[in-house]
Amino acid sequence: MSGSSDTEVYVKQGFGKDLELKAPFGLLLIDFVNGFADEAWFGGGNIRDAIACSVDLLAAARERGWPVAHTRIVFADDASDANVFSDKIPSMLHLTEAAEISQIVPDLAPRPGELVVRKQLPSGFAGTSLQGWLTRHGVRTLMIAGCTTSGCVRASVLDAVGAGFVPIVVRDCVGDRAIGPHEANLFDMEKKYAQILDRDTVLAAATVPA
Amino acid sequence: MSGSSDTEVYVKQGFGKDLELKAPFGLLLIDFVNGFADEAWFGGGNIRDAIACSVDLLAAARERGWPVAHTRIVFADDASDANVFSDKIPSMLHLTEAAEISQIVPDLAPRPGELVVRKQLPSGFAGTSLQGWLTRHGVRTLMIAGCTTSGCVRASVLDAVGAGFVPIVVRDCVGDRAIGPHEANLFDMEKKYAQILDRDTVLAAATVPA
Amino acid sequence: MSGSSDTEVYVKQGFGKDLELKAPFGLLLIDFVNGFADEAWFGGGNIRDAIACSVDLLAAARERGWPVAHTRIVFADDASDANVFSDKIPSMLHLTEAAEISQIVPDLAPRPGELVVRKQLPSGFAGTSLQGWLTRHGVRTLMIAGCTTSGCVRASVLDAVGAGFVPIVVRDCVGDRAIGPHEANLFDMEKKYAQILDRDTVLAAATVPA
Amino acid sequence: MSGSSDTEVYVKQGFGKDLELKAPFGLLLIDFVNGFADEAWFGGGNIRDAIACSVDLLAAARERGWPVAHTRIVFADDASDANVFSDKIPSMLHLTEAAEISQIVPDLAPRPGELVVRKQLPSGFAGTSLQGWLTRHGVRTLMIAGCTTSGCVRASVLDAVGAGFVPIVVRDCVGDRAIGPHEANLFDMEKKYAQILDRDTVLAAATVPA
Repeated sequence: MSGSSDTEVYVKQGFGKDLELKAPFGLLLIDFVNGFADEAWFGGGNIRDAIACSVDLLAAARERGWPVAHTRIVFADDASDANVFSDKIPSMLHLTEAAEISQIVPDLAPRPGELVVRKQLPSGFAGTSLQGWLTRHGVRTLMIAGCTTSGCVRASVLDAVGAGFVPIVVRDCVGDRAIGPHEANLFDMEKKYAQILDRDTVLAAATVPA
Repeated sequence: MSGSSDTEVYVKQGFGKDLELKAPFGLLLIDFVNGFADEAWFGGGNIRDAIACSVDLLAAARERGWPVAHTRIVFADDASDANVFSDKIPSMLHLTEAAEISQIVPDLAPRPGELVVRKQLPSGFAGTSLQGWLTRHGVRTLMIAGCTTSGCVRASVLDAVGAGFVPIVVRDCVGDRAIGPHEANLFDMEKKYAQILDRDTVLAAATVPA
Repeated sequence: MSGSSDTEVYVKQGFGKDLELKAPFGLLLIDFVNGFADEAWFGGGNIRDAIACSVDLLAAARERGWPVAHTRIVFADDASDANVFSDKIPSMLHLTEAAEISQIVPDLAPRPGELVVRKQLPSGFAGTSLQGWLTRHGVRTLMIAGCTTSGCVRASVLDAVGAGFVPIVVRDCVGDRAIGPHEANLFDMEKKYAQILDRDTVLAAATVPA
Repeated sequence: MSGSSDTEVYVKQGFGKDLELKAPFGLLLIDFVNGFADEAWFGGGNIRDAIACSVDLLAAARERGWPVAHTRIVFADDASDANVFSDKIPSMLHLTEAAEISQIVPDLAPRPGELVVRKQLPSGFAGTSLQGWLTRHGVRTLMIAGCTTSGCVRASVLDAVGAGFVPIVVRDCVGDRAIGPHEANLFDMEKKYAQILDRDTVLAAATVPA
């Protein structure tokens, strides 16, 4: 997305240093719901690939005892909680509690004890109990998978930074409906907010139990 | 940045609806400090153009009585408040209270009664009193200028959405050190979070006093 | 609750100035659910009186077109979102989505378009979309009724202050399971955070439509 | 403060369970500034006793390597950040950056690397970087000293609960300008939000290094 001159200025100004992974770890799966796996609603691009890649990530997280949180976009049945986000994308208001498109995809279904966050904003932290829950469960480094890279993933990464967590974007486990924004946002996040690592690199590095 | 097929999926899925400007209005100027006007530090690209464009925007806001807030990145002299943002970009820690590079550019110097927000994170809202101040002063629609488009502007827009304000990104008054990320983030914001309008369009539309 | 010498120091130090009511107005009803109307669960004291008093307050708010928000404490069925608040009061975890004790009392049942906030913390603002919703709907002064005075009412008042709203505690529409804490907290709020006014005074003063 | 019948209802309804101390620990010292040690400004009651008690608490925290954060109330020189809190208590606006009354008392002066939080609201968390800083430094249980018990201590405890920390109020290290509100707020916090422990009990229990 960004040309070589774009990259040069970031290098010259000292952006994009590596982050250190600090145990304990946790996993956040963002908006992997049926409606984002379906191009007729909010899907497309490489989102299905990201879901497929996340199956083993979730299995490993559970095996290692990491706290796991899932997010869903859920608006009220009467749309009383409509906001600027739904003003920009009115079809979001179809993501109601009981709607099939707002259910987490079967391959990544939550288990008891995992947090399921309902949200009406891009970030999994905005207007939710996610930050407090992660801190209660001792998380310091947060592995982030989900969709879309240019939307709810990036917004959650930003708030994870503010909340004092080390955010790791699991590159092959995040997806977007369009590849241009996917890559542009990986670029921004790598330069300023997060470490971007492949799933297998994450799982090899983060072996300490939570 | 995004190819035509990228744009198509957004159109098909109903993204990017227009937002309605609701009075009262307010103005937020993000990180227009010396260090972001200087390519040797964090500047470059079209940031100086954005500063020049913002002079008349600020004058008009003052004339119309809009509440005006400015942000600066300010870290503690002992770097005790270092965070993931400064881990990624260690030179940010030079932006201390008294440093010349952390002072607002002379052309946009704050006046008494305007809020000057010190922050250590991209968003002007994160860990600051900005939201409460805007609400106290009655703001509903927030005009946003500043830098960088791909960093602190976008992060502030996201939080403005969460805080219930209508965010208007003043296109010619926002800038970035590199044009690729500038355009990619205007694209994302237009599709999902904000209205993007030229300065003169904003000033023509928002004539109601605060 | 506080003796005369307690009061004197507050007067001498200049606490407890009056707040100005600024339109537009909104109404927040906190935790008026069956379980807080029932002394076998979380009720007692003057909570039933506060509910009775709130019926006409709610009717007036609707007639005047004020935005109305209700809160309920709702924990997940699997208690995955347990927190320090529920650690201190484990029976709170019985307040699940479908539980009869977590439903809003019939006399104050929400209408379509009114916000119903699920929360797991004392404040109606903590981890919820309440702040953004109130701002979107233009509220500047927030009338607050509910229970308990020493718990969720006070916590919500504190966050209303932080969010830039003028908080008005409607004295006869707030209640607590025990009168000592009820009065002690009215005292604290009056000195430091809010205006305390009787319902009829509020309704006489706040005649401007939202 | 609360009569025996007040206490009975809390017992019957299952309030006030003990909290478990979880390492790592941190220390928060709230508003121990000259103006709160001086009855001519905001002091009185048992605040000086709380300061004296906190000297050894701070020394022990440093010896054990706990992260330490201090808060100060600091309003802008031009009062541009006035809010409802300062509307209720206008003399708060004298607590500016350079004012002698807003400086931390010499016996508890911060050391390099300790966080010094400027705030304009009761809670040390509201509009500040405190939550993110504590999480970055790994804190799970937060020892809280400071003043006043009925004001900034309680507000900080509430937000600590929301942020997922276990809040421990160090009973002899918190103080208030008046004893009635001091005791009433210890009662509320013990029943609903925090563990209340004497300093020596805290130091005996929390021996694990951070």
